Amino acid sequence: MDYELDRGIAVRPEGGGVYGVELDPGWVVGGGLNGGYLLAVIGNAIRAELTSTGQPDPISVSAYYLTPTVPGPARVRVRPVRTGGRRATVAATLVQEERGAEVERMTVLAAYGDLAAMPGDVLRELAPPALPPLEECLPASLASEDFRKMAPLLDRLGTRLDPACLGWATGRPSGNGVVQGWFRLADDRPLDPVALLLVVDALPPTTFDMGLPGWAPTLELTAHVRAVPAAGWAVVRHRTRTVSGGHFEEDCEVWDATGRLVAQSRQLALVPRPPR
Amino acid sequence: MDYELDRGIAVRPEGGGVYGVELDPGWVVGGGLNGGYLLAVIGNAIRAELTSTGQPDPISVSAYYLTPTVPGPARVRVRPVRTGGRRATVAATLVQEERGAEVERMTVLAAYGDLAAMPGDVLRELAPPALPPLEECLPASLASEDFRKMAPLLDRLGTRLDPACLGWATGRPSGNGVVQGWFRLADDRPLDPVALLLVVDALPPTTFDMGLPGWAPTLELTAHVRAVPAAGWAVVRHRTRTVSGGHFEEDCEVWDATGRLVAQSRQLALVPRPPR
Repeated sequence: MDYELDRGIAVRPEGGGVYGVELDPGWVVGGGLNGGYLLAVIGNAIRAELTSTGQPDPISVSAYYLTPTVPGPARVRVRPVRTGGRRATVAATLVQEERGAEVERMTVLAAYGDLAAMPGDVLRELAPPALPPLEECLPASLASEDFRKMAPLLDRLGTRLDPACLGWATGRPSGNGVVQGWFRLADDRPLDPVALLLVVDALPPTTFDMGLPGWAPTLELTAHVRAVPAAGWAVVRHRTRTVSGGHFEEDCEVWDATGRLVAQSRQLALVPRPPR
Repeated sequence: MDYELDRGIAVRPEGGGVYGVELDPGWVVGGGLNGGYLLAVIGNAIRAELTSTGQPDPISVSAYYLTPTVPGPARVRVRPVRTGGRRATVAATLVQEERGAEVERMTVLAAYGDLAAMPGDVLRELAPPALPPLEECLPASLASEDFRKMAPLLDRLGTRLDPACLGWATGRPSGNGVVQGWFRLADDRPLDPVALLLVVDALPPTTFDMGLPGWAPTLELTAHVRAVPAAGWAVVRHRTRTVSGGHFEEDCEVWDATGRLVAQSRQLALVPRPPR
């Protein structure tokens, strides 16, 4: 199997918890690399570091976005914080060289474990939204060529968005602050716990649906992976409920094809400034 | 003014970003120190470190709980990650000595800024729940003496809980997974951004309301402070919606006396094991 995401998040161990990576311009959206892609890159380096300990799966990953990441070479530095129990806690940073100096792009804390070894019981679960059938949801291929050129990421995703939350594309945002749809990767790469780190930040920002176009930089994003996803189309919902003081939170839930809630995340982001 | 919380979170600068603190047994609940209290301790040390930079307020704080903290001496080590912009990002750890060696209790990433300098506009806001009036909500002083002995924390809080989410106290949990009520500190210490870090983890766990008694250890908690709280009674709601695979998430929102959403948090915690 040779999937785009696996090529994009491949890491080369350099020893001492350091992993080299070539950040792929195919995951650019707007001016920068997608935050979910970068989270999956870091998540994959941590996975490489922890697989031998029997704790290969992200359970909780908290990322602080520091400076804009650019396509090209980068390094992930993974440092153990606490290991030896049922979970391993690590700190990690994504760094790039800038005029000969190393600059931190993102800094992360994460707890990893073994999702397969966790109990399978579901005592209570948030239900997925009622989406229109797949064939009534809209693929990114319908976006204008200009829009797609600005967001090569779209060609990597097989997302089909609920038309009810796409009013912004024709100047009529719903004002609900919701972006939801069916999710798969364009080349059908199966979802797994690391891929879920991409999924939680791969859709357009909910501020689009609030009538606030423009880039919405993430300050912080925490993702919780709740179960190993089953194969097939996932359902993803992003929602914002409080847009105030220049910030908004965006909650995301991901359900797998069996309806199991497999990941959830919340991010705090900056409200886009009105275009000048 | 001499308030309990200020005494409990007071930090002594030791230089180089290190702060000494005496963790107060008055904030114990069950077997350990309350997680929200510890978050406020760390938040206060970061505040001390950053006040001179004009970024005294927590905007986002992500904490990973590593080992059980005990009352007594501790240190907070604060390390700058990125400073110089409109926000400062820092890493911090809470450590205690154990048989001569320093053990990490909690590790934190945080972004601080100046909440007073942020725009005051509210474009959209999650509404507070409709609580019964204050006089119909129940103070902790009604709890049994045994229960209060186990949770000295309760005497520090002036919380009045909604009776609809207190069925667990008489063996009839509602099953809704909600714990909500009016909040103030018992000695009327005004709430501020650092105190909100306590508030987001000061109520009984939502698993009580799900019929799952017992200690629910937090793995990770991220709090976002959205505004400086106004004086007066706050409204706090904790909710869990997915209890599966041995984990549950607990979302918390805090509204100030004017109805402004001033803080929100999500934590991932372990489902308590049934008592043997």
